[in-house]
Amino acid sequence: MKKYNVAVVGATGAVGREMLSILEERDFPFDNLKLLASERSAGKKMTCKGKEYTVEATTPESFEGVDIALFSAGAGASKKFAPEAAKRGAVVVDNSSQWRMDPEVPLVVPEVNPEDIFKHKGIIANPNCSTIQMVAALKPIYDKVGIERIVVSTYQAVSGTGKAAIDELREQAKAILADEEVKSEVYPYQIAFNVLPHIDIFFDDGYTKEEIKMVNETKKIMGDDSIKVTATAARVPVVYGHAESLNIETKDKLTVSEAKELLDNAPGVSVVDKPEELAYPMQIDVENNDEVLVGRIREDNTIEKGLNLWIVANNLRKGAALNTIQIAERLVQG
Amino acid sequence: MKKYNVAVVGATGAVGREMLSILEERDFPFDNLKLLASERSAGKKMTCKGKEYTVEATTPESFEGVDIALFSAGAGASKKFAPEAAKRGAVVVDNSSQWRMDPEVPLVVPEVNPEDIFKHKGIIANPNCSTIQMVAALKPIYDKVGIERIVVSTYQAVSGTGKAAIDELREQAKAILADEEVKSEVYPYQIAFNVLPHIDIFFDDGYTKEEIKMVNETKKIMGDDSIKVTATAARVPVVYGHAESLNIETKDKLTVSEAKELLDNAPGVSVVDKPEELAYPMQIDVENNDEVLVGRIREDNTIEKGLNLWIVANNLRKGAALNTIQIAERLVQG
Repeated sequence: MKKYNVAVVGATGAVGREMLSILEERDFPFDNLKLLASERSAGKKMTCKGKEYTVEATTPESFEGVDIALFSAGAGASKKFAPEAAKRGAVVVDNSSQWRMDPEVPLVVPEVNPEDIFKHKGIIANPNCSTIQMVAALKPIYDKVGIERIVVSTYQAVSGTGKAAIDELREQAKAILADEEVKSEVYPYQIAFNVLPHIDIFFDDGYTKEEIKMVNETKKIMGDDSIKVTATAARVPVVYGHAESLNIETKDKLTVSEAKELLDNAPGVSVVDKPEELAYPMQIDVENNDEVLVGRIREDNTIEKGLNLWIVANNLRKGAALNTIQIAERLVQG
Repeated sequence: MKKYNVAVVGATGAVGREMLSILEERDFPFDNLKLLASERSAGKKMTCKGKEYTVEATTPESFEGVDIALFSAGAGASKKFAPEAAKRGAVVVDNSSQWRMDPEVPLVVPEVNPEDIFKHKGIIANPNCSTIQMVAALKPIYDKVGIERIVVSTYQAVSGTGKAAIDELREQAKAILADEEVKSEVYPYQIAFNVLPHIDIFFDDGYTKEEIKMVNETKKIMGDDSIKVTATAARVPVVYGHAESLNIETKDKLTVSEAKELLDNAPGVSVVDKPEELAYPMQIDVENNDEVLVGRIREDNTIEKGLNLWIVANNLRKGAALNTIQIAERLVQG
């Protein structure tokens, strides 16, 4: 079996660490592994498959001889270094927002549009975490009955912001429980015991970039510009896992039991929907579960063909690191 | 000025305590105040307007001579004692779900349908917390352009469940931060650092009672059965304040700036919507604020006449105790 030279850019971040775990867990066929990060993190030691690696500062030359470069170091680093990696013959799978809407760059969820992987010109983009779990759950429904419109409200974990946000949530919660002063540095306001209807920057029309990502990326991944999406994205005081409340209007009628059967047979999706046993998807369930959980499936009888759904997935794994590595796996399988 | 004999039933609970604060803050014209609760709480001492009261166990005879009885002791107590109070000449303002959908009982939000107060036959019902803040915010929009359909997802605080739930959230958060075992007694699962898409009991169609309350109570308060409502209710690890993500379809077009102006002039409603200054409604803002805050007002361009809104209010005050006392105030003003 052919083995690959793999680079992980942003290895020391929250998603980078998950990437190393997943490369190990899934026994990704790498030969050499290069851990790259910012100047600041250079020299750190990290372990993968029992071997210790020293983190190096990223330079254009870092990508010489690299076959696959997994990027999760923010849009700035991807803008600067992804073309350098591609120029040197690596295929970049990029977890930042930098290249997602570039018409030359495929945007891929392997359960949804694996065929797009092979259209790459050196860079493949990994979608936004909240989009990935939504389209993974909706794809089987889309294929069966079509989707007219999606109204989504999110309940997103702080780990999506990074390690500093996890620390901030924990520190703030500790301070509040001890009746001490709360400091906010990562977020503009207290996130512990609060909800912020604000993720990423605001545009002039009042939507946030996170909300618009869900609109645009869904259309691109599904390959269908006619799907109407309107989103409200909120940050909740949860460490791991994003939840989403979806109201969808399908083109043809789909009953609740048909939806459950479809989703139960879908790759990467698991139906958790037995209200009589109080079984429904929760964020605590995905800390160690890579599937997209779907439950609370209900007929919306305010429209002719409507369903309500509750979707939960691990934002760092299926929403980021795992999806990135699943793309790389498909790529090497050819 | 006439003064009234007032009884508070459920005085020792989370909402009961808020009632006492609000009676004092708003200088409600009471003469005698009787604090009632279950047998278990009898004998406790509580203070209102600088005077100490001893809590008594509720009996039918407790209501002799009472003019206004404010109930917040759960549906069971309201079922048993509200008719006894009414029989003895008291007007009951009931915060439980017991009488809300009874066609003989007005269901009132003073900013929305104050005229219904005077149709009472001894009992007036206070709506569910999540319904109150939604209809208070939607009423001015409804009056101006009509409302076709509402899709709502909630982010509800644990204080809606009561004092034991507040303690459970705090204890669980402490345990998790100290890496200790988490105990769940009030909720079926951990609520700290988690979200439960489950409030109140489940019905056969998969909806919870909380969700169906929002559907039915909205129609009754607005006096319009044609308003279509579909709801998903979730509990978030927040102590005070409910947030709601609303997508609405209006009958006539309403622009974002028209909606802001309408809401800014509406009683009990305050617009907090300056994204450029990161001003949007948050639960931490309503701990000491009685208004219904509305923000994140955006045009939903997936439909011809659609808006997205984010609504936050204090669930124990505007969502319960305050609304109850506002009803009583209107009642005594005649």
